[in-house]
Amino acid sequence: MPELRKDPIIDRWVIISTERGKRPSDIPSPEINTQKSFCPFCNKNEGKTPPEILAFRPQNSSANSPGWTLRVVPNKFPALTVEGEIERVGEGMFDKMSGSGAHEVIIESPDHGVALEELPVKNLEDSFWAFQKRMVDLQKDDRFRYILVFKNHGEAAGATLEHTHSQLIALPIVPEFVNEELAASRRHYEYKERCIYCDVIAQEIGDERRIVHQNEKFIAICPYAPRFPFETWILPKYHSARFESNGANDFPLLAELTKDILLRMRKALNSPPYNFVLHTAPARIDADPYYHWHIEIMPKMTKVAGFEQGTGFYINHTSPELAAETLRKISL
Amino acid sequence: MPELRKDPIIDRWVIISTERGKRPSDIPSPEINTQKSFCPFCNKNEGKTPPEILAFRPQNSSANSPGWTLRVVPNKFPALTVEGEIERVGEGMFDKMSGSGAHEVIIESPDHGVALEELPVKNLEDSFWAFQKRMVDLQKDDRFRYILVFKNHGEAAGATLEHTHSQLIALPIVPEFVNEELAASRRHYEYKERCIYCDVIAQEIGDERRIVHQNEKFIAICPYAPRFPFETWILPKYHSARFESNGANDFPLLAELTKDILLRMRKALNSPPYNFVLHTAPARIDADPYYHWHIEIMPKMTKVAGFEQGTGFYINHTSPELAAETLRKISL
Repeated sequence: MPELRKDPIIDRWVIISTERGKRPSDIPSPEINTQKSFCPFCNKNEGKTPPEILAFRPQNSSANSPGWTLRVVPNKFPALTVEGEIERVGEGMFDKMSGSGAHEVIIESPDHGVALEELPVKNLEDSFWAFQKRMVDLQKDDRFRYILVFKNHGEAAGATLEHTHSQLIALPIVPEFVNEELAASRRHYEYKERCIYCDVIAQEIGDERRIVHQNEKFIAICPYAPRFPFETWILPKYHSARFESNGANDFPLLAELTKDILLRMRKALNSPPYNFVLHTAPARIDADPYYHWHIEIMPKMTKVAGFEQGTGFYINHTSPELAAETLRKISL
Repeated sequence: MPELRKDPIIDRWVIISTERGKRPSDIPSPEINTQKSFCPFCNKNEGKTPPEILAFRPQNSSANSPGWTLRVVPNKFPALTVEGEIERVGEGMFDKMSGSGAHEVIIESPDHGVALEELPVKNLEDSFWAFQKRMVDLQKDDRFRYILVFKNHGEAAGATLEHTHSQLIALPIVPEFVNEELAASRRHYEYKERCIYCDVIAQEIGDERRIVHQNEKFIAICPYAPRFPFETWILPKYHSARFESNGANDFPLLAELTKDILLRMRKALNSPPYNFVLHTAPARIDADPYYHWHIEIMPKMTKVAGFEQGTGFYINHTSPELAAETLRKISL
């Protein structure tokens, strides 16, 4: 059973997946699917994944059969397992918790070798729909405090299967990065009675230099203090704390802007590997006045991970003004 | 001139090195020295680095000539520049600071292709001496709030030159990871009047399962909630907040244990790339009662950086108990 452990010094939880790597000889192998010839996410291979949880498919087709355009399935090698109550245990001064959670995969297309940004806007829109549906469903389970949605595209960004997919992990804790954003935006709200993200958007719109692209409802900016070259955030221009209660009527515009940004990166940066992470307010916390959901896209421009990963301290050789200008100038 | 920028939402400073990558065409190239045939850190190439700041060399040899066993030189491509006062500027709601600082390289051996752990213990001892000397010297400059010492070994861990070296960056801010440790250890001290690291060491010594190796003065443990497989920390067994005021008499024992741990990793994990980061109390902060300096060593076992880098949220497939057992069993 996987375990969540808390660092005894700082407020950081880590998932220790003890099921894997039980024997020393198993350890140094990274968990990459090297079977290049066979892909369980492809059309007609529906039987090779666990049974689907959700699918967009013709009305008359049956579950786990071909014909779908998007499928959500449980991760075959989950970081957390869905069974069991959350048990909190102390080990002397240390703290741990049973690793109950959910780990699902959103397969955004039946076609292999097509990147998310190459798909029709409709597929991206459906992905956002699927994220929302799964989040709403999983939040009914009050063991889960946060639903983390992210995408690893390309091996260097951590993808273990090439076929385009996103992932969802339901967690019994709120991850540190969300906690920090929540604390900071709450402080700002207490002082100013305004959402800090709305303030940032207003300043960015006035300044213009870090805007990559925008439409009626959403804006894409290179943030003022980016950790990574070409890091780009997509935010709703109106105040909205929770992705999962955001009006899905706006998803066509969100899908359009997301595809636009990913295509610009693809063209400007020679199809880079990338990660995106959806940041939203945790379930059952009253963050509605002050938090603002958004998507952070991080292309992986350098092979080097460096010491940044261990320190949270970043050196970035590309200013966000230059990155935004470069992406803006791309003609699609 | 490089710039430090603060994220407008959370407490995170980032160095933006605007000197580099000024033109879009410069951007996608990572800063790796690909001139495999020539190495500026090798014996007899002293003229190819900026003039040395410190060297261990025969009494009668002159600076920047061969014969040395360890050299400290300014980084030729510094992340921060040493000139200029620290200027703090607001840009609307955003904050920035001029990027004054120092960036130095500690070349631990004149021989190319030898890893730190393959060198005689004396070279490691000299490295710790050099770190200390440079830290004490740079702390006299009250523009600098923190001296960050780290090593990137291997390209996948961010090394841009193969020849063994560590780096030192003097910063006008205290990095987030140190701030978090300081805040947490101060809270523990206020409540218990004890150092939290001393408490952790006591529990680990009682438990034994996560100890890799120890000697009279230092201990190496796989921490209870490690972010990375085989992450290992080396700490003094006695209370000491600052590496730079630690009795250098103990450096032979520190060097011996560091070499021991790195050799165990080398043997167990097939010469992995790794990062180490020295954590110490910031200058001019009274952290002596509650902080505890230590070294964090993070082998880079997987190619994947994944979304962890962007979220501070970690999934680790190797328990620290298994990692410690594996490293303990290695015969050197």
